[in-house]
Amino acid sequence: MKAAVSQSRTHSADAALRERARTVLPGGMYGHLSASALPPGYPQFYQRSEGARVWDVDGTEYIDLMCSFGPIVLGYQHPKVEAAAAAQRARGDTMAGPAACMVEAAELLVDRVAHADWALFAKNGTDATTTCLMIARAATGRSTVLAAAGAYHGSAPWCTPKLAGVTSHDRATIGYYRYNDMASLEQAAQQADGDVAAVLVSPLRHDAGYDQELVDPAFARGLRALCDRIGAVLIMDEVRAGFRLNEGGSWEHLSVPPDLSAWSKAIGNGYPVAAVLGSGSLSDAASQVYVTGSFWFQAVPMAAAIATITAIHDEGAIAAMESFGSGLRRGLAEQARAAGLTVYQTGPVQMPNLRFADDENFAQALAFCATAAEHGVIVHPRHNWFVSAAHNHRDLERVLEATSHAFQHVRRRFS
Amino acid sequence: MKAAVSQSRTHSADAALRERARTVLPGGMYGHLSASALPPGYPQFYQRSEGARVWDVDGTEYIDLMCSFGPIVLGYQHPKVEAAAAAQRARGDTMAGPAACMVEAAELLVDRVAHADWALFAKNGTDATTTCLMIARAATGRSTVLAAAGAYHGSAPWCTPKLAGVTSHDRATIGYYRYNDMASLEQAAQQADGDVAAVLVSPLRHDAGYDQELVDPAFARGLRALCDRIGAVLIMDEVRAGFRLNEGGSWEHLSVPPDLSAWSKAIGNGYPVAAVLGSGSLSDAASQVYVTGSFWFQAVPMAAAIATITAIHDEGAIAAMESFGSGLRRGLAEQARAAGLTVYQTGPVQMPNLRFADDENFAQALAFCATAAEHGVIVHPRHNWFVSAAHNHRDLERVLEATSHAFQHVRRRFS
Repeated sequence: MKAAVSQSRTHSADAALRERARTVLPGGMYGHLSASALPPGYPQFYQRSEGARVWDVDGTEYIDLMCSFGPIVLGYQHPKVEAAAAAQRARGDTMAGPAACMVEAAELLVDRVAHADWALFAKNGTDATTTCLMIARAATGRSTVLAAAGAYHGSAPWCTPKLAGVTSHDRATIGYYRYNDMASLEQAAQQADGDVAAVLVSPLRHDAGYDQELVDPAFARGLRALCDRIGAVLIMDEVRAGFRLNEGGSWEHLSVPPDLSAWSKAIGNGYPVAAVLGSGSLSDAASQVYVTGSFWFQAVPMAAAIATITAIHDEGAIAAMESFGSGLRRGLAEQARAAGLTVYQTGPVQMPNLRFADDENFAQALAFCATAAEHGVIVHPRHNWFVSAAHNHRDLERVLEATSHAFQHVRRRFS
Repeated sequence: MKAAVSQSRTHSADAALRERARTVLPGGMYGHLSASALPPGYPQFYQRSEGARVWDVDGTEYIDLMCSFGPIVLGYQHPKVEAAAAAQRARGDTMAGPAACMVEAAELLVDRVAHADWALFAKNGTDATTTCLMIARAATGRSTVLAAAGAYHGSAPWCTPKLAGVTSHDRATIGYYRYNDMASLEQAAQQADGDVAAVLVSPLRHDAGYDQELVDPAFARGLRALCDRIGAVLIMDEVRAGFRLNEGGSWEHLSVPPDLSAWSKAIGNGYPVAAVLGSGSLSDAASQVYVTGSFWFQAVPMAAAIATITAIHDEGAIAAMESFGSGLRRGLAEQARAAGLTVYQTGPVQMPNLRFADDENFAQALAFCATAAEHGVIVHPRHNWFVSAAHNHRDLERVLEATSHAFQHVRRRFS
């Protein structure tokens, strides 16, 4: 396998696949893993992954700081997760009904997440957020859900960030507030005139293309108080941050419990599973809504989730991600300063977010990412990155070597 | 492992798991695999699956005629599918981007399904049907979608069969016609007053709890002509029937092509994958809608899909299912006649559907299924069953032995 250095890279296999994909996939590729808005030379197709590393179809090796946009929390091909998955797979996966590990996975989540009394498993993060809305509506008999403007909660018609194919009815029951702005939330609730079924909130503001913003504890408490006052359900969207910041719910340190929470991504270390966790008072409503899917009861992802959540605890994964993330943040800050560039790093260090000052159309960020990729590191110009517990200190050195080149390139090109 | 005979069965492990599940899963279990509306003694939890067989958590062996409600088309743990999945898994599954097999899977589907020029992969059948609606709306700039009343197209708010948690807005753009009733379709189109984005249709009427009904070729042609006349998109929901009746689209023998088709279940033999297939004219619209999911680009299910679709062809899976299904239909008909019971068997033999005459609240069907389970065969009282290519003639003998007991039991109890 070749290590990525800008001189020796080839993209012929990737280019050939993109050419074939242009014919048989919409737009050549779709969704959040599309490289079409990334710099040329950024790989689209991959052949292998292990630990903190991925290899593109041309055999070039990278340290991957996107972790498939979050699912990979322990590193690719984590031995204990793969062993648990393999053991379950040998017995059965998609069967005539669930395996015992579905109950065990639910018990484990209920044990780990303070507000949770029960768990409902699904496949996509979007399944989990949408199911939360349905449960809140069933419980309250109301329709309106208040969400933070610009927040990503999935790609169903009620929440997808692009409006193609979306009708006005799809969003007629969604009201919007500004994250961390209690007055805007009160106003949105007032506009809904007694019809607020739920307030949907992410543990932090992590909208793509913006600085991340931690929740203001006063806002979190105010949001909880408002829900209690008006009888609305507090829904926490943990899909992106869950099990990367804490081993329980992301607002447990604030002692602000949600009523429902939506999970996916990290809970199975890449195996496809999502979950709704809920308080006991919503158990009846949860049993009334009809949601299901052909693969929602697969046993292997449940076994993988148990192994993942267990290993996150046993291996001190959160602390490891914090350590790597802190080192990365310090290193990037020093390199930017040395290059005379102003950058903003925001949010939790486990979800690094780098923005260049005065970066129209993300031109500097794109150039930075292109050079980082040329030097063997996968990061993203508009979306937060993700650290896994497999990223170690040797990886950090190599990442910082690549980002040093990337900052120098940005300096030369834009200063 | 114990073979199921009514005397020796125990349910202690299943009962213990149900007790734990009552605490941590909504309603003790949710969705289409819930055994809560099935007779006591019908297993809820399974420990193993292989070929045509499943084993419940008490170690009792069954011939499974539900195939996990469709996904298992070649039999559980099919060697070629598992080998392809294992080979891909050793390289990578959920990665920084898709693997080459995503393009190969799209090319294979485009090759096999006559109307398809491109493929978009997702995870749930509901993802696929919902994405079809979005693409049709993006393409036409219209909102209304006409669907057959009572048809199952997934469990999103616009289509789930129960109304808990559903708002009036969720269905404001859905109009309804009666399957195989051209006049009702014309009327529904007229009511939409020029706003019909799409007509959604299943290849046959397979509503749970009713006799199945093959499509009337004149209705299929009329539906196509209506879509052409009013500029609406014809969406075929192949999720349940796809790759079980034909190796291509289910209406190819009628020469009635859809514009979009939604697939899932059988295409990965139990691995979680869904697909939208589309005509070239809708490729632009498909690239405009934003739909995605954390696990939609998993490489292992794509590799499994390629192996499954290839094996369906190479192993003559459709013919094998037809042969078993025909034998089962004949055998059931003879047994019912011998027992003096009137039953209706409808639809394709690969998707057996058994209804008892004058069967209020499915009481006879429930008794039939309970006895069949006691004798080691899993079938369903209200939903069509599914044959796989792993069901062989020895299995048929054993199934018919069990159903013979079941018919005798129904005769004794209800005549």
